[in-house]
Parts: sequence; C-alpha cells; structure tokens
Amino acid sequence: MTQINRRKLFGLGAASVAAVGAGAIATNALMEGTQPAAAASTSDPLPFYGEHQAGIVTPAQDRLHFVSFDVITKKRDELIDMLQEWTASAARMTQGKDSGTFGAVGGAIEAPPDDTGEALGLPASGLTITIGFGPSLFDDRFGLAAKKPGALADLPKFPGEDLLPEISGGDICVQACAHDPQVAVHAVRNLARIGFGKVSVRWSQLGFGRTSSTSRAQSTARNLMGFKDGTNNLKLEDASMLKQQLWVAPGDGPAWMSGGSYMVTRKIRMNIETWDRTSLSEQQQIFGRDKGEGAPLGKKHEFDELDFAAKNPDGTPVIAIDAHVRLAHPSTHGNAHLLRRGYNYVDGSDGLGRLDAGLFFIAYQRDPRKQFVPVQMELSRKDPLNEYIKHVSSGLFACPPGLRDAGDYWGRTLFA
Amino acid sequence: MTQINRRKLFGLGAASVAAVGAGAIATNALMEGTQPAAAASTSDPLPFYGEHQAGIVTPAQDRLHFVSFDVITKKRDELIDMLQEWTASAARMTQGKDSGTFGAVGGAIEAPPDDTGEALGLPASGLTITIGFGPSLFDDRFGLAAKKPGALADLPKFPGEDLLPEISGGDICVQACAHDPQVAVHAVRNLARIGFGKVSVRWSQLGFGRTSSTSRAQSTARNLMGFKDGTNNLKLEDASMLKQQLWVAPGDGPAWMSGGSYMVTRKIRMNIETWDRTSLSEQQQIFGRDKGEGAPLGKKHEFDELDFAAKNPDGTPVIAIDAHVRLAHPSTHGNAHLLRRGYNYVDGSDGLGRLDAGLFFIAYQRDPRKQFVPVQMELSRKDPLNEYIKHVSSGLFACPPGLRDAGDYWGRTLFA
Repeated sequence: MTQINRRKLFGLGAASVAAVGAGAIATNALMEGTQPAAAASTSDPLPFYGEHQAGIVTPAQDRLHFVSFDVITKKRDELIDMLQEWTASAARMTQGKDSGTFGAVGGAIEAPPDDTGEALGLPASGLTITIGFGPSLFDDRFGLAAKKPGALADLPKFPGEDLLPEISGGDICVQACAHDPQVAVHAVRNLARIGFGKVSVRWSQLGFGRTSSTSRAQSTARNLMGFKDGTNNLKLEDASMLKQQLWVAPGDGPAWMSGGSYMVTRKIRMNIETWDRTSLSEQQQIFGRDKGEGAPLGKKHEFDELDFAAKNPDGTPVIAIDAHVRLAHPSTHGNAHLLRRGYNYVDGSDGLGRLDAGLFFIAYQRDPRKQFVPVQMELSRKDPLNEYIKHVSSGLFACPPGLRDAGDYWGRTLFA
Repeated sequence: MTQINRRKLFGLGAASVAAVGAGAIATNALMEGTQPAAAASTSDPLPFYGEHQAGIVTPAQDRLHFVSFDVITKKRDELIDMLQEWTASAARMTQGKDSGTFGAVGGAIEAPPDDTGEALGLPASGLTITIGFGPSLFDDRFGLAAKKPGALADLPKFPGEDLLPEISGGDICVQACAHDPQVAVHAVRNLARIGFGKVSVRWSQLGFGRTSSTSRAQSTARNLMGFKDGTNNLKLEDASMLKQQLWVAPGDGPAWMSGGSYMVTRKIRMNIETWDRTSLSEQQQIFGRDKGEGAPLGKKHEFDELDFAAKNPDGTPVIAIDAHVRLAHPSTHGNAHLLRRGYNYVDGSDGLGRLDAGLFFIAYQRDPRKQFVPVQMELSRKDPLNEYIKHVSSGLFACPPGLRDAGDYWGRTLFA
C-alpha cells in the first residue's frame, strides 16, 4: 500500500526542499504573531498554522473556489468529527500533499481512495483554506445559540439588491484560494467528499483575476469594468490598522472569535454590455478615477491622494459628489475600512444573449455593523454604478482565529 | 487622444522585445507551413497568422473561454463587416494589445472606448482565438447552403446523451485559450462587444486545467476523475498524422475548408460524488490505466504501450474488454485519431448539494463522420464510465484555414 504523495510525484528537488524549509520558518514566525511571509514563488506552500487563519491577509492568490455548505447531520458530535477530519485534510493539502494517506499508486485497493487525484503532481500553488461559520449555524440544532456573536446579526436589506436565497447564506463556508484553479477546486471537492452525509453543498463560486491586492508588494488588479479595484485596500503591512479594523479583539464579543474576523460576500452581477456602451468620460466620472492609470481624477498617479475639495474651473467638483471613490471612502464612514479580497467571475451566459459576469466581492472586517453595513448602505442609495450592477447573493460568516498546531481543529474555540 | 497600449502599460522591457522578435520569426516560419513554435514563456504572444488557425495544434494553454453565438442580423454584408472587425481585433489582442485604437489614458473621450480595459497591463499570455462556423449558419439566411461541407452533417443521437439545446450548437463559435483567464475572458467579451446587434451570445463556457497535451513538450494533465487524460493524443510533432487525421485536404469537400479542421465540443457532466465513492480498483479497471502514474494496467509507465492481449493468471484480460482505453483506442476504429483539447470545468453547484463539474471536451479532426462519430458511438454504447458521466451539450463547427496576413479575414474563403 503505497501512499499517494503529491510532492513525491512532483519530484522533491532542491528548490522544493528549500521551499518547505522556508514554510517551516514562516510558520514559527506566525506562531509569534508576526505577519505571514509571502511564498517565494506561486507554486510554493504557505503556512497553515498561525495566530490568524491563512487566506485573509495572505497576499491575494489569483484564483478562488468558494463554497457554502448546509449542515445536514443533526448530531453535534458528527459535525465536530467532520471539522476535525477537514482540518487534518486541509493541513495536508495546503502543504501540497494529498488529502489523506489511504490510497495506492499502481496497487489494487478495494476502497475509494482518500484523495480524488486531480491535483496529483501539482505543487501547493499557494493554497490557503479559510473557514467561516454562518448565522444559521447558531440556531437550536447544535447548542450554539448562546455563542452567536452580535456582529453576526443578519445584514439589513439594502436598496436595489435582488438576492437569490439558493446562492446566499449557508451554515459553513470555505474559501480556497490558490494560484492554480485545479488546486483550489481539488481542495473544495475533497472537503465535500469528506463531508458526505454531514454537509451538503449549498452554493459554490469560482473566481479569477483577484480584484484586490492585500499587500503593497502586489500591483492593483482590474475588475470586469476595466478599472483598477482596491487601490486603498487594507494591506498586510498596515499592522496597526489591521489590529483596529480587521481582527476581532478580546472583549469584542464571545471569546471564541478573538483573533478571528468577519467575512461578507456579495455576488455582484455586472451589466457589462451596457457598461461597454457607456462613454469613457462617464465611466471615469462614475468611479472618480481615470481608467488607464487608476489615478484619482485631477491627479496623475494611482496612489496620489484623493482631493475631494478640488474644483473644476466652472466650480463643479473634480471628483463628483456621488463618485464611487467618494461614497466608499473611509472619511465618509467614520474611518471604516475593509480588507477586500474579491475575484472576477464569468458563469457562462444568461440565456438572454449576455455574459453572466461580475465581481464576487469578499471583505473581511472586525465588525460588519460598523464597517460593511454603513458603507454598503451609502453605496446602495447613492452610487451611480448601481445602474450597471446588481447584488444577487449575500453571505456573512464568522471566521474563527487560526489553528495553533496539529492538535487543534476548525471550530475548537466554538465547540469547546 | 492617447492610444491605450497594453504593452506600453506593462513595460516593454528587453525580454518583451525579444519575445516580439521571436513571434515575428515564428510567424514567418508558419507562413512556410512548418509547425508553430511554442512561446518562450507563458506570458509571450503567439503568432496570429499562418497556414492553419492558431489554437489547434498550439500547445494547449491552461485556461479556456469558449463562446457560441447566434447571428441575429439578417444582412450578409453586416455579418462580413463584423467578421472583418473581429479579425482586426483578434490580431491585436493576441499580440497583447488592446482590442482597438480608440480610447484615452486620462483623457475625456465622449464615446465608449474601443477596449473594455480589464486586460490593460496584462501580457499576451499565449492568447489564441480560433473561429468555427456551425451547421446552422448554412441555412438560407446568408446564401451559404451550397457551401455546407458534408462533414458538417448533424451528429447522430448517441445513446444516453441528454443534450440541453440552449447550451448546444450555434452559428459561430470562438475558442479563446490563454494562460491567464482574464486575458481569455477579455478576448471573448470584446468580440461580443463588437458584435452587438449582429450576434447574440448563445452559450459560453469557462475551463481550466487543460486535460490534453497537444505537444510532447507538455506533461499529461488530469481530468476531474483524477486520471491523466490524453496520453495518446495527437501531438503537434506528429506531422504526417496531422496531415492524415487533422487538416482538411483539397478534395475533401468545399475548397473553402482546405487547411481547416472540424471541431466537436461536448460538455460532459461528471457525477463526481458517486465517482469519489468508487473503489480505486474499480476506477482503474474502468479506465484501463492506473491512477497514480497513468500507466496501462499491467505496465509501469505512462507511455508504455497498451497490451490488449495480456491476460491475468486466471485468464481474464488485464485491460478489461470494455475498458475506456480499449474502446477509445484507434485500433478499435480503423485508426481514427482525434486531436483533443478539452478543459475541466466547475460551474458552481447544482442546487442538489453537488458540485456542477466535469469535462468540456473539444476535439479537432479531418472528418467527424469518420473520427468522432464512430468513436463516440462505441463509447456511448459500451463504456462503463457512462455510469458516472452525462453529455449535456454538443457543438459541431467548421474551422476555416488560417489567415495569410492583415488583409485577410475570418470567413474570407467562405464568403468570397
């Protein structure tokens, strides 16, 4: 019975050994609470253990497979067992290994293998797997009602949204990010395999072309409206801002979330055909930035400071009163920041002759009631972008703190 | 009015200059009928002009955006004008440029820009754009009925298929392949933009993780059943086989297709949850190969020759009578080969708790009546894999020969 080992098949050359070594060092650094190091290359593994979950401030990888599960077992112990199995599998997969140890290369094994195989031979590809618990998990099924954080209160109804319940919400979400979509898909698929009979896939979403950078070492990517997105995003280098805006602190609510963060997802369908027939001038007025460079209107470079007071010769503001950058800016919301980590998506076409495309928005924060909710309320009321977009799905999840070591598991602080 | 130029924004360093030079040389080589060279890196451009269309024997890129259009204009001239505009745009985009020349960086232009912008700053990423004409284009709308090739006869109904008409067929298809999905999506989206009012998106499909290698320089990739797929695929190095099996020759049918090839697409949904609960032994028996290495059963290495006569000690065949490799093998079909160029897909979930995933199969050939049809008829009748898969979409397209130069356009040989 030979163990299927992705690294073995891939060839454990000197470079891989060095990368594994670097991963171990980064893990130790993380345990001491410092920032996670970026992998040396897009094929290398990232640390799985640490004070916070990986996949939040980790420099955004290029591809996403996001999945939301309904828990279908009624048994608390079965759910905990599954979370322990998931954790063990995720610890292996993020390091470029197969999901489990049972299987054979060339042998005849009379049981389904512990890994589905499609990532055999592929490197770790910067895979991170991040878990979150939705408000619905805190009903009366598992005795968790008393542990529900206030920050996990249902989002209000926003003007103009048109949410489809079948692709919204869910008891547990998993965000798998990697530089290779096959590696991200493999991770989600193996967790679904392990969870068979205990959880059921409620909805899932693939994404590409990260639309936000989460590190100053990354260039700003473009959304499907063709604009740079997330220039002023929270970045992993902003240590004191992260403490203030991203990570749940002791005393913020139930102790089990300390060191965690709250995730909001919004699937934002774009009417790209209408947008594509809008003049460049109008597109730039709506965003408040120029399209080519990403510079604030009236400035030259992407990272030039926004000047909301600047006027045109005719006295009108250079950046319109309802420009997206003005409405979304922290100065409009008592300094509320978000760490955005969204992806572009194309889900084929819509049967009406149009591409079904847009932005799968993901944002992390310390308290959605003070961050996402007021920002989105302002945008949903005033943003002229609303003519070209529609929010069709919504998710809210409490992402617990990171895992200490191989004896820890996803949900330990919640179920303990 | 400054021209938006992707390469300018990306920075035309020494490496890029070298790559452009290599592309020019490869173009010339192609014009003389030799095989296209692989790009030096996954970010470089590939030649657009040549004897055959790019994107067929081109070493399979990692990502796909495939789109099928219905023609909605009734005017032949409008259709030809659009195909000429498409060709000019594709020539630019495959070289890493924006789709058109009208637009501005930082300027105020009172018209929609000639490019949608989301690929600004991204390199060419090996983009190829390949066009095909479906059987329905040869009805009485455009006076093409007499030019319909016999090889474009509708595919027969295959046992067990469950085709959805809304994601099957179409008048014109475009296959965009690149190493960056944002570049492939950008290409399809800009062709749809140019075609507004003349064509309508009928269906579109994203894919990742090429499941077939089309060059001996590529390793064999894995499908979502976890098996290596396409080990014995036609490869660009097989010059005499390509002549015999891939390219339409003078005398095969209407002259306009000489140098072209016929494309069959099949969206093959996999019941991956059922497959994942099947024993490794059974999975291997069904394929006739081992899962880890991809070796034929009874052999050690992926490229070891299949031995269909080999017997186990108990007299049963080592490779089962109905193993997939045996049923699909050219020796079963009078030496009929296919050049496969498929991609894995995940389209989210199906509302029944399962991932909506499988293989988007693409195969090129000289005559589907002698190649795809007999192979698929055998498989659809006998392959035990059918328990785990279902064909849900089908397409058949005549892909014309390559373009000679900037004065040529997609469809010239057909409409001339």
